[in-house]
Amino acid sequence: MNTVRVVGTGLLGTSVALGLTSRAASPTRVLLSDPSPTALALARDLGAGEIDDGTTEADLVVVACPPDVTGQVVLAELAAHPAATVTDVASVKAGVLDAVLAAGGDAARYVGGHPMAGRERSGAVAARGDLFLGRPWVICATPKNDPARLDAVVAMALALGASVVTMSPADHDQAVALVSHTPQVVASLVAARLQGAPEDAVTIAGQGLRDVTRIAGSDPTLWAQILSANAAPVAAVLRAIRDDLDGALAALDALAAERDVPAHGARGDLARLVAAGNLGRERLPGKHGARPTAFASVTVAIPDEPGALARVFADIGQAGVNIEELSLEHAPGRAVGLVELSVLPAARERLERALAEHGWQVVG
Amino acid sequence: MNTVRVVGTGLLGTSVALGLTSRAASPTRVLLSDPSPTALALARDLGAGEIDDGTTEADLVVVACPPDVTGQVVLAELAAHPAATVTDVASVKAGVLDAVLAAGGDAARYVGGHPMAGRERSGAVAARGDLFLGRPWVICATPKNDPARLDAVVAMALALGASVVTMSPADHDQAVALVSHTPQVVASLVAARLQGAPEDAVTIAGQGLRDVTRIAGSDPTLWAQILSANAAPVAAVLRAIRDDLDGALAALDALAAERDVPAHGARGDLARLVAAGNLGRERLPGKHGARPTAFASVTVAIPDEPGALARVFADIGQAGVNIEELSLEHAPGRAVGLVELSVLPAARERLERALAEHGWQVVG
Repeated sequence: MNTVRVVGTGLLGTSVALGLTSRAASPTRVLLSDPSPTALALARDLGAGEIDDGTTEADLVVVACPPDVTGQVVLAELAAHPAATVTDVASVKAGVLDAVLAAGGDAARYVGGHPMAGRERSGAVAARGDLFLGRPWVICATPKNDPARLDAVVAMALALGASVVTMSPADHDQAVALVSHTPQVVASLVAARLQGAPEDAVTIAGQGLRDVTRIAGSDPTLWAQILSANAAPVAAVLRAIRDDLDGALAALDALAAERDVPAHGARGDLARLVAAGNLGRERLPGKHGARPTAFASVTVAIPDEPGALARVFADIGQAGVNIEELSLEHAPGRAVGLVELSVLPAARERLERALAEHGWQVVG
Repeated sequence: MNTVRVVGTGLLGTSVALGLTSRAASPTRVLLSDPSPTALALARDLGAGEIDDGTTEADLVVVACPPDVTGQVVLAELAAHPAATVTDVASVKAGVLDAVLAAGGDAARYVGGHPMAGRERSGAVAARGDLFLGRPWVICATPKNDPARLDAVVAMALALGASVVTMSPADHDQAVALVSHTPQVVASLVAARLQGAPEDAVTIAGQGLRDVTRIAGSDPTLWAQILSANAAPVAAVLRAIRDDLDGALAALDALAAERDVPAHGARGDLARLVAAGNLGRERLPGKHGARPTAFASVTVAIPDEPGALARVFADIGQAGVNIEELSLEHAPGRAVGLVELSVLPAARERLERALAEHGWQVVG
């Protein structure tokens, strides 16, 4: 990996370039390309690499352009750089491979990838060399791949600090349909219901609704591209959800009419739905990829002012308690913040004692 | 509010009792009642009040028992304490009022309430006198209410530090169907899909799925009670969601078949769904009940050890930057934590400079 060409200097492409150029151990020469001269110059000015003038051949090409043109660009790069390994970062993978195979592209040299990283801001200006640190990077090996080409792409992801996960393009697309694309659609469906909500109703909304709808703030154009590129796998998951939803509706309808007709089994149906959610939720890996631990949670009220978090965490640190998870909650109409701290169950008592000793108000 | 009788010494009842007995300014005498002698003695031992021996009449009765028996218990308390104001804390309100009216209970003295507070743990042992601090407490006034009775219930909620929101029982039930009960069902539906997921798929799950499914860990029995008590309003919201979902499925099916038949307008339909979610999400109030502000976000990598959070927040506090929201992210397979800090946009540069000066690794 002596020379890497990055095609597309948006958030992901520029982050890859910055990560590779800034490695102290073995710096890589990065050649930048983008159809927008402004975006290209910006990435260069940020230190992401040099503008590709066509005089140097790259060993590895990273295609980081919008998902709806990735297939064509990968094909063009395979043709223009007949010795290079070509990878991409698009969030749907089977379609890119299909495009390569359908056009007779060199499938031995194309190894698709998908770094599970992003930011709410976009463009080169939001790029970070460490964007991929500790994040999964899916590499989609295929039987046609030259093993040395696969190794080169894996080495790049590892060089950027990512955790490599290999799976087939079809398995990848089904996995992201389940863990990323469907949750996006569902969050949007729930949030869309709030459009016509009375003011009082949104006033009493709590953390649960905020969590369920957080990703509903995403970019509509980008998501229309992603969802349409992965239409069949997303539809399959959504259809299964709709079947369960129809079951819940039948139970609720029976309960709403219970004064007239006994709703046999309806409560059980609802309880089973929530219990199935419990089991599914437990499948999610916990911190550092380990099995989930049931953390104990402690909520502290703190004044809403600079330095307050510092003071509370200093007191916690002194007590030798490690915080596993934390979140800052809203306190409507009050000038206090509520910080929810999750710790190992064995550490809860020590944490509560330390907080009380330092005069912090533990509220839950 | 000289003497308050609390019926049901679980999490909410014991928290109300603790909050009222511990007020330094004007302590209230609290009489405790519970069908379980053990739960009752535990609440007393925690300092929540004295066991009600029937010799003192309360001014105010707070019914804090499971939702499926609240109506009956409110009726019994109205009859047994003919001078007292009676309120409850059940999360669905129209059914309780209906039970009072249907049995000819004294509706002038019954004022329903619903504190929007809870914990993941339950029972008296998890109770906190400050559980309601800064949380909304819905008071369901009805035309039949004696104004002085309404005032007494409002005064109690304010004494516990809550923000009072008044609405009719029907409006309340529709509001919680939208902002609490439907999100719970949808989170359970999404989480339930993970039950059969391949191990690789859950490995690459990110923060989005974790957020959407966080509340899917809730208690099935309690939620079967809540959903069945609010069946019609929840069904109405879920049916609207299902209609939008059918629209999304039609668009996805058209896109999946696009090789054979052009999918006219399908991308637009998906983009419009995500855009509708953007608009709905913007309805949620921001910090302290204010309009939402677009915060700037900065992510810092920190070592996973006691004191690390203290050091980073000490450095932030020194720079005079106020953190508006924060969350600790998982870094699968790595011994670092990623802390995402949200600050006012104007403070971002100062925050990033302060972090860099102190040697923190800003990764996003």
